[in-house]
Amino acid sequence: MAAAAPTTGSPKHHDPSFTMTELVDKLEGFTRQEFEDTCIRRFFFGLSNDPYGGTAGLYDMGPSMCSMKANFVDLWRRHFVIEEGMMEMDLPSVVPEEIFIASGHVAKFNDVMVRDSVTGENFRLDKLVDAWCDGKIADAKVPAAEKEAIKILQLDCDTMTKDELDAAIIKFKIKSPKGNDLTPSFPFNLMFKTMIGPEGTKTGYLRPELAQGIILNFKRLIDTNCAQKMPYAAACIGQAFRNEIAPRAALIRVREFALAEIEHFMNPEEKQHPKYPTIKDIKIWAFDQNQQEKHEKPTLRSIQELHDAGNMPNETLAYFIGRTALFLQKLGVKVFRFRQHKKKEMAHYASDCWDAELLTTYGWVECVGLADRSAYDLTCHIKATKKDLKGRCDYAEPKVVRVLERKVDKGKCGKALGKDTGAFIEHVTAMPEEEALALDAALNAGPVDLEVAGKTLKISRDLVTFAHKDEKQTGYTFVPSVVEPSFGIGRILYAALEQAYWVRRDDSGKNEKRAVFSFLPALAPQKVAVLPLMMKQPAEGRAAALTQAFMSAGLSTRSDTSGGAIGRKYARVDEVGIPYAVTVDFEEDKAVTLRERDSGRQVRVPETEVVGVVAALCNPFTPMAWEDVAAKYPAQAAAKE
Amino acid sequence: MAAAAPTTGSPKHHDPSFTMTELVDKLEGFTRQEFEDTCIRRFFFGLSNDPYGGTAGLYDMGPSMCSMKANFVDLWRRHFVIEEGMMEMDLPSVVPEEIFIASGHVAKFNDVMVRDSVTGENFRLDKLVDAWCDGKIADAKVPAAEKEAIKILQLDCDTMTKDELDAAIIKFKIKSPKGNDLTPSFPFNLMFKTMIGPEGTKTGYLRPELAQGIILNFKRLIDTNCAQKMPYAAACIGQAFRNEIAPRAALIRVREFALAEIEHFMNPEEKQHPKYPTIKDIKIWAFDQNQQEKHEKPTLRSIQELHDAGNMPNETLAYFIGRTALFLQKLGVKVFRFRQHKKKEMAHYASDCWDAELLTTYGWVECVGLADRSAYDLTCHIKATKKDLKGRCDYAEPKVVRVLERKVDKGKCGKALGKDTGAFIEHVTAMPEEEALALDAALNAGPVDLEVAGKTLKISRDLVTFAHKDEKQTGYTFVPSVVEPSFGIGRILYAALEQAYWVRRDDSGKNEKRAVFSFLPALAPQKVAVLPLMMKQPAEGRAAALTQAFMSAGLSTRSDTSGGAIGRKYARVDEVGIPYAVTVDFEEDKAVTLRERDSGRQVRVPETEVVGVVAALCNPFTPMAWEDVAAKYPAQAAAKE
Repeated sequence: MAAAAPTTGSPKHHDPSFTMTELVDKLEGFTRQEFEDTCIRRFFFGLSNDPYGGTAGLYDMGPSMCSMKANFVDLWRRHFVIEEGMMEMDLPSVVPEEIFIASGHVAKFNDVMVRDSVTGENFRLDKLVDAWCDGKIADAKVPAAEKEAIKILQLDCDTMTKDELDAAIIKFKIKSPKGNDLTPSFPFNLMFKTMIGPEGTKTGYLRPELAQGIILNFKRLIDTNCAQKMPYAAACIGQAFRNEIAPRAALIRVREFALAEIEHFMNPEEKQHPKYPTIKDIKIWAFDQNQQEKHEKPTLRSIQELHDAGNMPNETLAYFIGRTALFLQKLGVKVFRFRQHKKKEMAHYASDCWDAELLTTYGWVECVGLADRSAYDLTCHIKATKKDLKGRCDYAEPKVVRVLERKVDKGKCGKALGKDTGAFIEHVTAMPEEEALALDAALNAGPVDLEVAGKTLKISRDLVTFAHKDEKQTGYTFVPSVVEPSFGIGRILYAALEQAYWVRRDDSGKNEKRAVFSFLPALAPQKVAVLPLMMKQPAEGRAAALTQAFMSAGLSTRSDTSGGAIGRKYARVDEVGIPYAVTVDFEEDKAVTLRERDSGRQVRVPETEVVGVVAALCNPFTPMAWEDVAAKYPAQAAAKE
Repeated sequence: MAAAAPTTGSPKHHDPSFTMTELVDKLEGFTRQEFEDTCIRRFFFGLSNDPYGGTAGLYDMGPSMCSMKANFVDLWRRHFVIEEGMMEMDLPSVVPEEIFIASGHVAKFNDVMVRDSVTGENFRLDKLVDAWCDGKIADAKVPAAEKEAIKILQLDCDTMTKDELDAAIIKFKIKSPKGNDLTPSFPFNLMFKTMIGPEGTKTGYLRPELAQGIILNFKRLIDTNCAQKMPYAAACIGQAFRNEIAPRAALIRVREFALAEIEHFMNPEEKQHPKYPTIKDIKIWAFDQNQQEKHEKPTLRSIQELHDAGNMPNETLAYFIGRTALFLQKLGVKVFRFRQHKKKEMAHYASDCWDAELLTTYGWVECVGLADRSAYDLTCHIKATKKDLKGRCDYAEPKVVRVLERKVDKGKCGKALGKDTGAFIEHVTAMPEEEALALDAALNAGPVDLEVAGKTLKISRDLVTFAHKDEKQTGYTFVPSVVEPSFGIGRILYAALEQAYWVRRDDSGKNEKRAVFSFLPALAPQKVAVLPLMMKQPAEGRAAALTQAFMSAGLSTRSDTSGGAIGRKYARVDEVGIPYAVTVDFEEDKAVTLRERDSGRQVRVPETEVVGVVAALCNPFTPMAWEDVAAKYPAQAAAKE
């Protein structure tokens, strides 16, 4: 193939100079079947346990995608953990049930399920309704008026409650895909259950998110001097597990997946972020609640604009949205938007939530969730453990505060209240000042019947006294407010695969279609390919030495020592997204040919310099530009491939 | 503290020039209690779910240890995956049961358990016997002769079978730790069990090792052109799970842990390794089967010596033992040995096995297992799936081979045998040549009663004929032989922590003890600390700018802006093993003080150069030596700390 080969079928976002002035809503010239064939054929991913017929919802990442995952983790760790000074931890996947009882996951982490009453097949109810709507809308026999009602149902079904969905089933007479009646719907908890220890009595779950493990360490990180001040952020990268009812859409809805999560803990009265000014001018495609309710389109706005207009009231959440946009750009992802959750759509723990959605052929896919979890989780765990898991803020100067002191006579209480004494003391200590003053006044008039922990206690004046006094306070405690950016690694990589994929047509007259993945070097699974022009000495020996030199320099290298034309070898290299290929030939100039994947341009580089040049081009954080290499070394006319 | 402070309590293996001429068998001057306090106090690790009282066998790695794990993975990936061109994959932890039924884990991955018949407490039988022996040996009332028998029992108990252990319980009248009778022993499967999918009918297990997932991809890696030739190695890094009966010993026996595994696939007739010459002269402390049986000590031998003497007959296994020794040295682990498994001790799948054992205060701990799994696993999976999961070897020249052709008349078989026809054809095709010739001769004499799949079939001459013919063969297929190096990441890191730990006494007269972790920069959790000498401008602002500059250069940085003496700050830095500290003071020379952790030596480096100098010192693969920095920059007399 000549250097100037026409590149048809290439979606415009692969052009490095491409910036979206209008939000695209599909990946142009994209054939999913071709793409998936390439992914399976070159083993980017494939169903797990392939010789056993594969297991639904469980995927193996082959060498290319596994390497991309490692690159993702390196970039993420550098961008977030190191540059932001976060506390990263490594936490187990198996978690005892008491944690998920407290956090609400045992009760609420459910999908609504129905069964085909004849075949016993299971369906997630909202997905079944969605698919049923598709069928009806496409059906010419359905009257137009009915179709309008069905279109509205389809728009709403992913945020409908169980009761609303049940009602829709009856109203629209929805059947299973096989046309059978459906069973009544029921909740299905998505957590995988297991038993911890040999007794068989201690239930555990595989974590469906990393958050609880991170959040449970909030206080320990302070107490051990890891986090030296508030606010601070903790992070974790690891596996999460959801026993999906109907896994589907390749890597998008799977039963085990890797997450990279951050929990940023802050004083609820101080939600500003000191580095907010560094990201406020970044422009993102934002799709806020109002736009969604009015069926408008997302618009390109700066973070500052969104924050000022009240769409992103939490400055720290806005900061992480900006950092996420920068990170996605570093990965080479170009087509993404941030969509705010609708009020009904929010998870049980969230008070505001924006998703970074990446465009795929499955539509806009939630790949990063940025949630304001407020103080939800720690409040749950404080209640369940009765431990002090609070943060503390020192006043600049100590303050003198007038407080109401509550003095309980324990001896008299013991006699009067017996074993209820403890509950009474707890009640009096926790009671709001206003209530305490009312009790005080009432006691002056005579004994009082007081409701304490579900019991009525007879309280007399001698049991408790109240008095105002001045107290010097150096600070106050608070349950921290938490902002959580959570990255679905598999989904992001899947979207990156789709967005990097295009097809080059060969100009040799055969018009062959050749798949190319245009990954940035930082994300590319392997950095360089070494291709002897023919399997003969000395080219073969020089290629082997060069391969070893690249590998010793830490560059993941593909060596293709098979026979066959160089064009076929380049095609195989492009198909796994390797950005640079080195061809070793028989010339006497002690140089090799270095080819860039996307343009097909080639330069002649001295053999002694080529490892350094490729290392510089592939530096994950400060890559050298190809243009600089092309300017420095003589061009090589490409051979007919 | 002055630069030349005495460093007492430092085990000799922390001396960088230390080489073991005699194998040490304990970590000198080591107090485990002090060490563990430091680890917990600075949150290297701690029990998971701490606010809930902690969960036995599940640990959180705090920021320091999590970062060490990331460093471990980077070094491992570079040393094995990239430098050896391995196929790394990312594979799920949840695995359907049919895989572990085929591999033998459902039947055999058990520990033998007993219960205290009164309290119901559970014990791993071998550990209970071991602890019981400890008690008896320490008991002055036990006669010497009986003690001798008990000592022999203790030496053998970890390799005894269930029946042998049961017999010992009766013979020695072994009781529970509380003195109660024990229940009969029973096997307990160590795999965590769960259900996959919403039906509740499909059993899955959390993988207890990574091997099966890797091995099931042997053929797919070839078919997808990822592995271009034999032999090749595949790798995986990920979590494994074992529902231990009695988790203990900090990170050494836990219920969830990270493994880094390699499966090297080769033609069973070609076990040589092309890179063997590069490691054959490495000397290791080796403890072979013979030495163990004769109660001798391990000896320092070269790999070549061991291979030639027949102790390591498999050259590829020997190669990986050499590479493992190099890797442990890169990590900074100094005290390790390789112990060959005794014949009785080997896992159900292994035909030879060597463990890299690292010295800890818990004794020699198996941290890397290097097993020759031969063709065990793939043979199991071929049997279970009936798929062709074999490798192929081409002959240099095609061969003409005389084979016995078996021709079955399907029409006549159908009439004579009905639905048994398929089984008959399969039987005839698979039957060894000798047996086929015998059948041929018998059929010439008349009909034969043939046992096929548990049935007796009447076979007559017209159903099948046999004839020799010449066949051209271009190669042959084989079930590959597998060598597996498997690294327990948590155990190695735990041993690295213990081996890097020592206590420095301060010479200020207070004689304070200060913990130091002497990690190599590549493994160190953070690379540099920035310490303003006082929290005043301009030192404070310069320190903040420098911290940001280090973080932007990708160096994990600790900034200590608390008040307090510089000596206390250095102590906190040493205690988490940070190799370099930068002090920012009020001098007008635009320079900062750079301190090396182990020696306490300090040099004065221009502020503009210090980020580059620290980055060079901490380069994980080609670090600059401190001596070169000390030679280049002026020394700084250390301030009294």
